[in-house]
Amino acid sequence: MAHVITDPPDENLRLLEERLATISDVYSAASVLAWDRQTYMPEGGVGGRAEQLATLARLAHEMLVSPETGGLLERAEEREPGSDGAALLRLARREYDRASRLPASLVAETSRATAVAEPAWIQARDNSDWSLFAPHMERVLALKQEEAGYLDGEHPYDAMLDRYDPGASTHRLRSMFSALKAGIVPLVRDVSARLGEDRTAPLGGRFVEAAQEAFGREVITSFGYDWNRGRQDRAVHPFCINFGGPDDVRITTRFDPGLLSVGLFATCHEAGHALYEQGVDPSYSRTPLAGGVSMGVHESQSRLWENLVARSRPFWFHFYPRLRDAFPSISGDVETFYKAVNAVRLSEIRTEADELTYDLHVLLRFELEVDLFENGLAVADLPGAWNAKMEEYLDLVPENDAQGVLQDTHWAIGYFGYFPSYTVGNVLSVQLYEAAVEERPEILPEMERGEFGTLLGWLRENVHRHGKKYEPDDLIERATGRPPDTAPYLRYLESKFGELYTIRDK
Amino acid sequence: MAHVITDPPDENLRLLEERLATISDVYSAASVLAWDRQTYMPEGGVGGRAEQLATLARLAHEMLVSPETGGLLERAEEREPGSDGAALLRLARREYDRASRLPASLVAETSRATAVAEPAWIQARDNSDWSLFAPHMERVLALKQEEAGYLDGEHPYDAMLDRYDPGASTHRLRSMFSALKAGIVPLVRDVSARLGEDRTAPLGGRFVEAAQEAFGREVITSFGYDWNRGRQDRAVHPFCINFGGPDDVRITTRFDPGLLSVGLFATCHEAGHALYEQGVDPSYSRTPLAGGVSMGVHESQSRLWENLVARSRPFWFHFYPRLRDAFPSISGDVETFYKAVNAVRLSEIRTEADELTYDLHVLLRFELEVDLFENGLAVADLPGAWNAKMEEYLDLVPENDAQGVLQDTHWAIGYFGYFPSYTVGNVLSVQLYEAAVEERPEILPEMERGEFGTLLGWLRENVHRHGKKYEPDDLIERATGRPPDTAPYLRYLESKFGELYTIRDK
Repeated sequence: MAHVITDPPDENLRLLEERLATISDVYSAASVLAWDRQTYMPEGGVGGRAEQLATLARLAHEMLVSPETGGLLERAEEREPGSDGAALLRLARREYDRASRLPASLVAETSRATAVAEPAWIQARDNSDWSLFAPHMERVLALKQEEAGYLDGEHPYDAMLDRYDPGASTHRLRSMFSALKAGIVPLVRDVSARLGEDRTAPLGGRFVEAAQEAFGREVITSFGYDWNRGRQDRAVHPFCINFGGPDDVRITTRFDPGLLSVGLFATCHEAGHALYEQGVDPSYSRTPLAGGVSMGVHESQSRLWENLVARSRPFWFHFYPRLRDAFPSISGDVETFYKAVNAVRLSEIRTEADELTYDLHVLLRFELEVDLFENGLAVADLPGAWNAKMEEYLDLVPENDAQGVLQDTHWAIGYFGYFPSYTVGNVLSVQLYEAAVEERPEILPEMERGEFGTLLGWLRENVHRHGKKYEPDDLIERATGRPPDTAPYLRYLESKFGELYTIRDK
Repeated sequence: MAHVITDPPDENLRLLEERLATISDVYSAASVLAWDRQTYMPEGGVGGRAEQLATLARLAHEMLVSPETGGLLERAEEREPGSDGAALLRLARREYDRASRLPASLVAETSRATAVAEPAWIQARDNSDWSLFAPHMERVLALKQEEAGYLDGEHPYDAMLDRYDPGASTHRLRSMFSALKAGIVPLVRDVSARLGEDRTAPLGGRFVEAAQEAFGREVITSFGYDWNRGRQDRAVHPFCINFGGPDDVRITTRFDPGLLSVGLFATCHEAGHALYEQGVDPSYSRTPLAGGVSMGVHESQSRLWENLVARSRPFWFHFYPRLRDAFPSISGDVETFYKAVNAVRLSEIRTEADELTYDLHVLLRFELEVDLFENGLAVADLPGAWNAKMEEYLDLVPENDAQGVLQDTHWAIGYFGYFPSYTVGNVLSVQLYEAAVEERPEILPEMERGEFGTLLGWLRENVHRHGKKYEPDDLIERATGRPPDTAPYLRYLESKFGELYTIRDK
């Protein structure tokens, strides 16, 4: 077992750490079961798995909120501010306080309901039939609303946000989205007027799945993904998962045989998450310090590797010739290909959206979630509300619900409040990347050679290794010298897409 | 949740069932983690997985032996003899009594030690280096000896046997093995004198793994293996595993690209286990009644499908033409192929042994385990003792330890006392099969058409569905009209191998 606090000896703290490690193990076991459910579990396993996950969630919750844990926390001596020990206590107390407010039965029921809702969502999506999912959505939403009722927050929705981004609030996100909207909407309008012919043609064709997988593996191996501490499998909805530490961090992906970008960018995205988790200080394993600090910072890592790296010119200088070796049917020069992977399209699917319109997809979900939690939007009205907003922001109406309200897994698994993390991540990715390049300008020439060691090293040093030690805002300020800020991100979008669509000169 | 006891209502029993279901869920979660460890887990996961498994084992153990469980058991009203409820109470009390004697720390430490020993064993086997495994063997053995000390039994080794075969004893197995030895050793001698040229040639060649897998899938699909409630993966040491019920029963296998029999018979063997588990009454799920009643009866099912079905003439009447379609390089008539899959060879590896010599491999392990537990055999002396017995029973000395003492996973995972189940299974497989064919003679003509519905139906009705409801001996007597008996098995071996090697006329 890893001990983050070794000095001075303190029996009470040792017992607390042991207890927290046990709880961490149970959560890790649940994560293995969740991984299995989404990768290899046969259909027949659905019911039993739901029970197992509910039991593990309940046991972990009971252990966390037990009088023993409470007593150990109460008796814990304060540690030197800024030390790992102080951070451990702060995080453990936050978890304990939050969990203590939730009845164990609610936790178990949420776990059970989402375990059943997820396969129902897959079926609904495959058949584009909202009615197959709607009752599950009702149930999961009701449980999460009940959860919000037990927790603090100016708004019920704040309780949802806080779980993924400690300190996030409806209020703060509203101003972030409003700044982004003010910058992005006119930019999208300008670009839309100049879209011209479809630039994505080089990404289409027939691409053997094994070759796609091999190319993706080559790319993320060059990023530094450690296969001895991870693996890649297929899943309907790609994800990254780990089990209490940096030594088994797995990613999943999906491939479209007719569209190269789907599998490649999903692979880079999930690898970005995995590089973060693989980089956390191993001594934090099985403690509250383990893992990425917030979903916003997590998404900053996935989006950084997906967009700032894998959708950049220097990246393709190196990888385009290799891609053509792997897929000789691809034609055109690297600049054409660079334009293809950055083509702006007003499209229906978030995960396939270009960088420019991506945040409008998130904005739509943020607003709908606020409406569900704060303004009484009914589940029955959700498909209609979805389509109305799609029309407003992206000037299109989804062909069917599979292309619309059913496209994401998040609600099925109870992840209300998660979506905003994607946009927080976009914002932070540029702030972090610019700080890295400013400090280590050799990152760019290295990237042109397919080398990423300096970039990964900077991220490891300034972000990854710290795990949950610092609060998200703190971590960003330490790494970049400034608090989180939308300005660099907006400048980046304006510059990149302004050039790509010749809105203004380079 | 399944309730096996619904009438009359009894709140105490309902609470007991709920508690046992929770414990079952934790064991099921541990099984998923074990499955993952042996199939897909990356190397880096070893340490963390050992902790997770130890934690789950400890939690399940603590819940089982807690005063709450004890109180519920004590207060339970007796149920009508022969009812599911009575069986549930009997099994729950046995588990409780057994577990109450073991300290939780020993249970956790055993789980942790075996989780580390297993990958060490794989490494040792791959490098044929006993020294890599010896310290783990010492540790696991010491823990199991400590366990035996806490449990009942005329012999310390009885405590090991009892876990896999309730009611088995060193004494009883000694007489079984002595009867078998008296029948098999002279038969092996007679056959050895007539071995002639190697009959296994048709099984050798180059066989693409995907084609081997497809053929195996076709075979076990025809047996009745339900893929909606299972799946097949690769593992170093094939196994079957399930998670608290019949709805997710997985098998693993391994393939030898140069030898067809390895993958095919491993597949049939594990499918035999899986058919048993898939056939247990679903209402027993998450209760002590779930799952096969003993490893002896379990092995009777795996060996029945592996040997009495897949090594029989009627089976190959149907499947040999299909096999030749799949592997056109195979030549010769079906009789030659039948002789190949039943060729007797004095060989080193138990899992590849023919039916006739198989029990001598088990006898050797049984005697060594007795020596380890009762006669002070030192781990350091085990490779030598192994080789000496191989020479005595099979007239050969393994080329190296990978081919000898390192070939099985059992000791690494703490399964002392398991090996005898294979021979118990062989004995019972013939007794059950003969009873089935006697009652339903159409089983044989169906088999010649590749149909197994009547055989599976008989096994479902007489064995599978009962789960753990009856004691093993009871189950066999109900199914066959007689208590377990070595005579049918010995007659079968004499008849089959007498004919194959023309020792006496058909």
